[in-house]
Amino acid sequence: MKRQAGPELERLIQLLARLPGLGPRSARRAVLHLIKNREKLFDPLTLALEEARHKVSACSVCGNVDTVDPCSVCADPRRDRSMICVVEDVGDLWALERANAWTGLYHVLGGTLSALGGVTPDDLNIGSLIARVSESGVKEVVLATNATVEGQTTAHYITERLKERGVSASRLAHGVPVGGELDYLDEGTLTQAIRARKPL
Amino acid sequence: MKRQAGPELERLIQLLARLPGLGPRSARRAVLHLIKNREKLFDPLTLALEEARHKVSACSVCGNVDTVDPCSVCADPRRDRSMICVVEDVGDLWALERANAWTGLYHVLGGTLSALGGVTPDDLNIGSLIARVSESGVKEVVLATNATVEGQTTAHYITERLKERGVSASRLAHGVPVGGELDYLDEGTLTQAIRARKPL
Repeated sequence: MKRQAGPELERLIQLLARLPGLGPRSARRAVLHLIKNREKLFDPLTLALEEARHKVSACSVCGNVDTVDPCSVCADPRRDRSMICVVEDVGDLWALERANAWTGLYHVLGGTLSALGGVTPDDLNIGSLIARVSESGVKEVVLATNATVEGQTTAHYITERLKERGVSASRLAHGVPVGGELDYLDEGTLTQAIRARKPL
Repeated sequence: MKRQAGPELERLIQLLARLPGLGPRSARRAVLHLIKNREKLFDPLTLALEEARHKVSACSVCGNVDTVDPCSVCADPRRDRSMICVVEDVGDLWALERANAWTGLYHVLGGTLSALGGVTPDDLNIGSLIARVSESGVKEVVLATNATVEGQTTAHYITERLKERGVSASRLAHGVPVGGELDYLDEGTLTQAIRARKPL
């Protein structure tokens, strides 16, 4: 393709296009938008990126990403330290936080077990989870891995490891999403929703 | 909303969410993606933004955005200097360049006339266009403003101004977009396509 905006701008467009949710066309629009809003957006965004790049690191306790270590969740004294919610990814942790759904601590695995992908328990933060559970007074571990085959396999493996240490594990409920229409749901979800029906 | 990622990251997410094509959710995913790909994406993107922020400016001749002034289009000796294509926005210029559709020079108006929006000819780069046309040996001006009411009004106004100086103006052809299906086209386009039909 012809370069119409000078090599520096083309490079910026290419890098932006690699962000999830942006393609080459929207990256181009984003760059124009930045240039047009220099004081209000371009400058602060560049500074915010620069700052985040230097400050952000993984929490040494739970694996969350933050500008402080331990992260603001682990450091929060109002959190229930006897409950740990295990998630695959930092994005899942943030989703649960957005929903205000959990008042305990977290543990980020950093992925799921995968025989095909060659991901073994040693590649995930499972050892550190077992260590956390063994040391402190953790009463319950909620396995909030995704409801995929890999996520469930990983949850199963962790359950077995926790059982050896006498810690009880639970998983998220399956069922109809709030606001969801039955017509659009898969059979597996509907079966689970019927089985786990609640008396009114 | 609860802050789950520290104020610096939340600020970065908010700024990214203001880019066209990104919302709060995709900005969050983008930030996680950046943090996970620190060397390959986060560092180079920040540097590219920093560099572009300092180098980018509007071309003093045509209004294009580039890291050099005059821009690489205006400076290109292979361009036909007797033809000027007038566009509303830098994005339109880039679109024509991507299509390799124009071998002349450009002139970016920076918007369209709008009685409601209070945009007068003095707010657009129309004076500089007339000056360019009067000084140098420009033979033809193509008015490639958008096919909207505002774009066409602006084109009409510029045509009148050019006529006073004896410079001929033309506009882009209207018709069926290449690859387009008739069924999805509006009546205006179809009428224009029929009227401007070509003998085979």
